[in-house]
Amino acid sequence: MPRRRSDVTKSDIEIAQEAQTLPIAEVAKRAGVPDAYLEQYGTRKAKVDYNLLRDHAHKPGKLVLVTAINPTPAGEGKTTTTVGLGDALARAGKKTVIALREPSLGPVFGIKGGAAGGGYAQVVPMEDINLHFTGDFHAISAANNLLAALIDNHIHQGNALGFDVRKVSWKRVVDMNDRALRDIVVGLGGKVNGFPRQDGFDITVASEVMAVFCLATDINDLKERLARMVVGYTAADEPITAGQLKAEGAMCALLKDALKPNLVQTLEGTPAFVHGGPFANIAHGCNSIMATRMALALGDYAVTEAGFGADLGAEKFLDIKCRLTGVRPHAVVVVATVRALKMHGGADKASLGQEDLAALEAGLPNLLQHVENVTGVFGLPCVVAINRFPTDTDAEVALIAERCRELGVNVALSNVWAEGGAGGAALAAEVIRLCEGEDAPELSFSYELDQPLRQKIEAVAKRIYRADGVTFEARAAKELDKLEQLGFGHLPICMAKTPASFTDDASRVGAPRGFSVTVRDVRVSAGAGFVVVLTGSIMTMPGLGKSPAAERIDVDETGRISGLF
Amino acid sequence: MPRRRSDVTKSDIEIAQEAQTLPIAEVAKRAGVPDAYLEQYGTRKAKVDYNLLRDHAHKPGKLVLVTAINPTPAGEGKTTTTVGLGDALARAGKKTVIALREPSLGPVFGIKGGAAGGGYAQVVPMEDINLHFTGDFHAISAANNLLAALIDNHIHQGNALGFDVRKVSWKRVVDMNDRALRDIVVGLGGKVNGFPRQDGFDITVASEVMAVFCLATDINDLKERLARMVVGYTAADEPITAGQLKAEGAMCALLKDALKPNLVQTLEGTPAFVHGGPFANIAHGCNSIMATRMALALGDYAVTEAGFGADLGAEKFLDIKCRLTGVRPHAVVVVATVRALKMHGGADKASLGQEDLAALEAGLPNLLQHVENVTGVFGLPCVVAINRFPTDTDAEVALIAERCRELGVNVALSNVWAEGGAGGAALAAEVIRLCEGEDAPELSFSYELDQPLRQKIEAVAKRIYRADGVTFEARAAKELDKLEQLGFGHLPICMAKTPASFTDDASRVGAPRGFSVTVRDVRVSAGAGFVVVLTGSIMTMPGLGKSPAAERIDVDETGRISGLF
Repeated sequence: MPRRRSDVTKSDIEIAQEAQTLPIAEVAKRAGVPDAYLEQYGTRKAKVDYNLLRDHAHKPGKLVLVTAINPTPAGEGKTTTTVGLGDALARAGKKTVIALREPSLGPVFGIKGGAAGGGYAQVVPMEDINLHFTGDFHAISAANNLLAALIDNHIHQGNALGFDVRKVSWKRVVDMNDRALRDIVVGLGGKVNGFPRQDGFDITVASEVMAVFCLATDINDLKERLARMVVGYTAADEPITAGQLKAEGAMCALLKDALKPNLVQTLEGTPAFVHGGPFANIAHGCNSIMATRMALALGDYAVTEAGFGADLGAEKFLDIKCRLTGVRPHAVVVVATVRALKMHGGADKASLGQEDLAALEAGLPNLLQHVENVTGVFGLPCVVAINRFPTDTDAEVALIAERCRELGVNVALSNVWAEGGAGGAALAAEVIRLCEGEDAPELSFSYELDQPLRQKIEAVAKRIYRADGVTFEARAAKELDKLEQLGFGHLPICMAKTPASFTDDASRVGAPRGFSVTVRDVRVSAGAGFVVVLTGSIMTMPGLGKSPAAERIDVDETGRISGLF
Repeated sequence: MPRRRSDVTKSDIEIAQEAQTLPIAEVAKRAGVPDAYLEQYGTRKAKVDYNLLRDHAHKPGKLVLVTAINPTPAGEGKTTTTVGLGDALARAGKKTVIALREPSLGPVFGIKGGAAGGGYAQVVPMEDINLHFTGDFHAISAANNLLAALIDNHIHQGNALGFDVRKVSWKRVVDMNDRALRDIVVGLGGKVNGFPRQDGFDITVASEVMAVFCLATDINDLKERLARMVVGYTAADEPITAGQLKAEGAMCALLKDALKPNLVQTLEGTPAFVHGGPFANIAHGCNSIMATRMALALGDYAVTEAGFGADLGAEKFLDIKCRLTGVRPHAVVVVATVRALKMHGGADKASLGQEDLAALEAGLPNLLQHVENVTGVFGLPCVVAINRFPTDTDAEVALIAERCRELGVNVALSNVWAEGGAGGAALAAEVIRLCEGEDAPELSFSYELDQPLRQKIEAVAKRIYRADGVTFEARAAKELDKLEQLGFGHLPICMAKTPASFTDDASRVGAPRGFSVTVRDVRVSAGAGFVVVLTGSIMTMPGLGKSPAAERIDVDETGRISGLF
């Protein structure tokens, strides 16, 4: 008999800690990873040597991208659905490998408490995944901060490259929500401490090193990308790169182990790569290409997710990652919940337990716009997954199905949170149907690389967000001109925008019309290979709330962790 | 035929990379670590669960402490001697386990390039050990910086505990030499970024979390120590602790895996724990008590080292670590080189290849004072190890042996750099002779805990450094009064001093007399359980030099690292 969400009384961490898991060596064996390529980190996690991709030819599997509506406080369960779909495909007899992002410590100690799925659709060991895991983010922070130290040291030691200290663009990072570091002055205290200058820290997951790491296809590519990164400008606005500081070798030495994808498993033993994790609001928002390629190499089906809503994560997955690396999805899953759609329709969080077809009808355009973007703009087959809650009524589900059917898209109910893979059978069946063709469908992009940067930004704003236009603030306009002059005009763009809305105003839910997007600033990530476009008031360093999750996280004398969920 | 130093043309990293090593599981097995307590990190390094110490009774082995003269640019080879002595004891049929500190990334990218021994007396994998290893220092940095974020967030969210923002004593850390972060202002940019205040970063290895980590005997002890740490003061000078911020649970969750000692091996397969690494000039300078206890539990002999010269590392090893944890050394090895002693006697680095008995005679008092301190102040048996160089003449070695004999201490020549354990046979024989007694000799301390803080500082300055007295600057005097009033007067002291001299002036080599030590500031490390005494101009954040080692570190496409040495 199927388990219902209301039957489950355990927390995520309790379910995860009680799980009977396979030794990771066994998971690797079943996935087809030869022993020589496996580096175990304890018995439950491992790194897989990227040389596997070079040494062995693999017929790539079919890629399924999981994305979602704009997130609301009601929760959507995108990672949960991704994990559950992977388990469901495995139950349907398909050799399946999942590829996910690694969580950042910032949100873990801030609000969320954890980010490895939920209920009976989790990847484990969830405590390790949510804390240091195999140390990748620390390696990224260290590489980033080594470069920062080399920059200020170079200036201190004579500044042979001619940095204008007002135009050092490289920031230090910490993988923590720490608002006090957003805007700082460094180098105070006199001559021995270097030259004072205004500076700031970003969170690690917003850094270019994270983006570079996730897009690098091997060590040489990683090193070349690191060397290309622009870290500041001369008085004459000539860019200065990490390569000119001879930083890329040592940075790459710090990253060489991190570059190997991390293998873990779902509660049902499905292999999952959890590797890399740029934020999707301020970075490109998907796991490493290494992990995606490895999942494709080992699985007949590879299931991956992109961060936040499809306007951010999926757009960048398709316009940046797919374009730069050549991977192509066979199908896209758009996750929604009845509750969240009602919030998009103006319902109050407290009233979500009651049927409210009017609010649902009002909120549905948010889902439908994402679906239209996937099918119409990018030209990909799509299924809507309704992550089921006990309070959802049949009438509410029927309304969603009807509206989606008008767009030629099917709806599948998913109950993976309560039931694990068994609860994803309908979704898996529809995904398999959409993936029937041998080759991935033709992928269209929302803009072309040979368009000027302003046109690319306008294309995303108009085609994906449905804005009337884009307003460029003076600083952004000046920077765009500079970047075009410097030859960066051919790069794709990485939109930094609130995840809560199609607009750049987090309060405007649903599917707004009649708005303009304001671009505040732009910066080039020459190593990652895109231009970051900062809209609205999006921040690259979050803060902690009034009652941070950190206050409730604990560990007992045996090493057992509590307070992650 | 013995290999001489001049026969060796390979770099340390080349020797290490060519070494035939045992699988770490085999090293663990030979050391007597049951499988269930071993967590492998790849095939060459592992963590050992600390519950081994609780679950299994072990008759502790004999502890040998390796220390040295004050370091000079000529190099002493203390870690090399420690590793080689471990191998030599193993060759002599003694079951031996080594315990060392983990290197900090700061010096690795700054000057040294590496810190895992040298020549044929190294621990491997040296690249991993010198870079992230198993991530312990990153965990320590993250725990430290989580607490910092919680402090500024607490102030931002209403400051219920009443921090005086001018008296926040907790600093952020980064494991990097980054002088620009020594003196900074945070919280600029307006209300959403918190309250502006003067701040600064320390290097991770100078942090109290590092000290706490190295002195904690289990998870509960770690958590209690973290909770006790003083992070700032109210306007009325009442201390505020990490426990009041409810930070210790999450910090401990970040540290719980790091707390397990890391097992690696020497080039000759001798097991070595490499765990924890506080700097010895600004912190207490020895590996974790967990690692020392585990080496003692598994080995008949445990060989460990303390950082820098015996005036810093050994003094703190004995007065702090031994006093707080009850471990007792059977014997002490003081490492010196002919070259370094000649520098202490005023010789120029360029002339060290020539016999210079006058300079040696002038520099010998540095060695002799360390020896007298070990035997006279602390009451421990001692041997002087001369780390041999090809240019050392017989007359020079004879002179050292003669002067040491006058103090009742034997000299053993060591050639472990070129020969590995075979080159340490004489040293091992003398160590075994000194360790003949079943029980460790009675240990005297250089001060008693019930003395006031000023008297303890004076005791170390006069008895160990041979200063005439101590000058307390106004700020230090005020802080000492405050700490005595707050009830911290009973704690041991942790001297922060230049390693290059017995005095607080790095340029005064040899064995100076007629000087006074200036105490600039003091701070309490209530979690670690000592009061840090800052003398001279010692800094808690190093800087990079004109040509940082980072510029020469690289990694090739197969992941092979170069430029560490």
